Amino acid sequence: MSDHLFAVIMAGGKGTRFWPLSRADRPKQLLAITGEKTMIQQTIDRLLPMVSQERILIVTGAAHVNAIREQLPSLPAANIIAEPIGRNTAPCVALAASIIAARDPEGVMAIFPADHVITQPEILRKTIATLLAILDHDPIKLATIGIAPSYPETGYGYIKKGEGADPVFSVDAFCEKPDESTAQTYVDSGDYFWNAGMFFWKVSTILARLSKDMPELMAALTPITSVINDDDAFNEAISRHYPALPAQSIDYGVMEKAGADKAVIVAVCDPGWSDVGSWRSLYDLTPEDANGNHSRGDFIAVDATGTLVHNTKRLVAVVGLDDVVVIETDDAILVVHKDKTQKVREVTEELQRRKRDDLL
Amino acid sequence: MSDHLFAVIMAGGKGTRFWPLSRADRPKQLLAITGEKTMIQQTIDRLLPMVSQERILIVTGAAHVNAIREQLPSLPAANIIAEPIGRNTAPCVALAASIIAARDPEGVMAIFPADHVITQPEILRKTIATLLAILDHDPIKLATIGIAPSYPETGYGYIKKGEGADPVFSVDAFCEKPDESTAQTYVDSGDYFWNAGMFFWKVSTILARLSKDMPELMAALTPITSVINDDDAFNEAISRHYPALPAQSIDYGVMEKAGADKAVIVAVCDPGWSDVGSWRSLYDLTPEDANGNHSRGDFIAVDATGTLVHNTKRLVAVVGLDDVVVIETDDAILVVHKDKTQKVREVTEELQRRKRDDLL
Repeated sequence: MSDHLFAVIMAGGKGTRFWPLSRADRPKQLLAITGEKTMIQQTIDRLLPMVSQERILIVTGAAHVNAIREQLPSLPAANIIAEPIGRNTAPCVALAASIIAARDPEGVMAIFPADHVITQPEILRKTIATLLAILDHDPIKLATIGIAPSYPETGYGYIKKGEGADPVFSVDAFCEKPDESTAQTYVDSGDYFWNAGMFFWKVSTILARLSKDMPELMAALTPITSVINDDDAFNEAISRHYPALPAQSIDYGVMEKAGADKAVIVAVCDPGWSDVGSWRSLYDLTPEDANGNHSRGDFIAVDATGTLVHNTKRLVAVVGLDDVVVIETDDAILVVHKDKTQKVREVTEELQRRKRDDLL
Repeated sequence: MSDHLFAVIMAGGKGTRFWPLSRADRPKQLLAITGEKTMIQQTIDRLLPMVSQERILIVTGAAHVNAIREQLPSLPAANIIAEPIGRNTAPCVALAASIIAARDPEGVMAIFPADHVITQPEILRKTIATLLAILDHDPIKLATIGIAPSYPETGYGYIKKGEGADPVFSVDAFCEKPDESTAQTYVDSGDYFWNAGMFFWKVSTILARLSKDMPELMAALTPITSVINDDDAFNEAISRHYPALPAQSIDYGVMEKAGADKAVIVAVCDPGWSDVGSWRSLYDLTPEDANGNHSRGDFIAVDATGTLVHNTKRLVAVVGLDDVVVIETDDAILVVHKDKTQKVREVTEELQRRKRDDLL
């Protein structure tokens, strides 16, 4: 591993897709829905064999800083960077790169989403080690991970591989979320991989790339980066100037252009990755019992199969129903057919109409 | 109303048919499932226009005495009679009749189950007044209420009416639970009524009848009735001798024979009676909203109809599912298809196997 390695965890998610588990003050990354630990705790655990806590930065919404400190008590408090308002990923990457550059101009930066699952982290770490070794010899490259697609998902961006030797290839193109038939073509070809939002580069390289591709962002960031060594002034500058940064993704702002320039490499792997984007994917990640029901808690099924039950405190019994999802929380219970989970949004909309902020 | 009227509430039910609402220490009569008050509280409220609390006796299992005292704090504690073990209804009636006879030899006794619903109590009270007036003139009759059947229920006993003038008839026969085609015949004929377990008689009349029809019971009861005016000795005698009384129903032990003797009259009425014997009947008793869902609590339905939701503390959301029953309690949640509620028994059996007495 590089002696200069830093990890940056992007923990800006604030979705209510997992209502009633996820709430405004408890987004997915702060939930223990895939095991005993929360997703951000699992993300950190995955990285500790590669990088010490002192070199892990977390960028998150100001509202979630305290919860993250509670969940990660050993992480230095100064390593949690609070966004006063989310501005998508490019400002977040630019700020984190600037902070790392101030600590170590030779710094190498590895970026991970806080709320994804990796069931085989050793495979991921091995792939990262390969990428870092390549970056050591070719420091002006940007690098990413491509996940071998298991089905034609239309909700992800894809990475098209170019020349190279398995598992590392030049990136031919970054492709936006495809329609169904395009996604099928991608999967059939064997040349396309899921973009899992993991990136690796020298901070000097990404800062140069940002200055070239997103000069307005870097200009707008200057009032913040100029006081980076003065904690109070820095926090004050973030509060004042961060909200005005252009909200853009690093994919659109940098990666697509860099891909077109043949400046990106991708390492292909299959580490049991899931973005846990839906109840359906949580179903797939939850252990199955002999009757085809998926649960971790206190659960009795009678004449029921294909059930997903998530409960922590109360026993759940499901009788005479197949393919239902039952989610138990302290103040709300969701019962939804597994094929209708996208309609849970209508529940949170109704809660907004009823001004039930206590449940949102 | 008769100056000599006493009411006797039979509160011996201990079923778990309404699990997870009903538990060993919280049978149906102690639950608020049909409104704000518990079923036994509603039963008492229904009677107070006819009879004062001092003249209402409750016969219940020893395990439920404290809960009943809490739910009915104004009822004299001495009016709650604890059965050390349930011996069906005949011993319970015989004991209550003996206690009333000791207080008032001219006593008239009205018997009601503790866990039925009457949506129009004034109709019931008017019918009872009619019956009591008749008993006043014809004190050797036994009287009962017949509920006009709305469908061919196979779970109830029926009463066949004989001669008479609406609404009071001589009873031609008491009929046991019929099979489906018999039940249909009963309903079609217009001559058969549901036996709702409400009885009215002078205590002297029922005690004479019991002595004739169930002499062993009355003999076995003597050690208890002989000390009826000495509280301590009485309680001691109940503990010792009640468990040995023959377990038989008043219907089988007395009413069927008295019916054959033409000694019973029935007043026919339709007071919105339900024995609340199943989730299905609770569904019928719970208010329906514009989407055809039945609930009293904090509830959101999306793309759902025919739902029964019973919750007291937590919001319940049902999405993309029809005809489900969701029951929320402090420690367990039941989700069951409305047509499969009879299988809830298998849940309580599984809980027994798992030795989960905390949930039974």
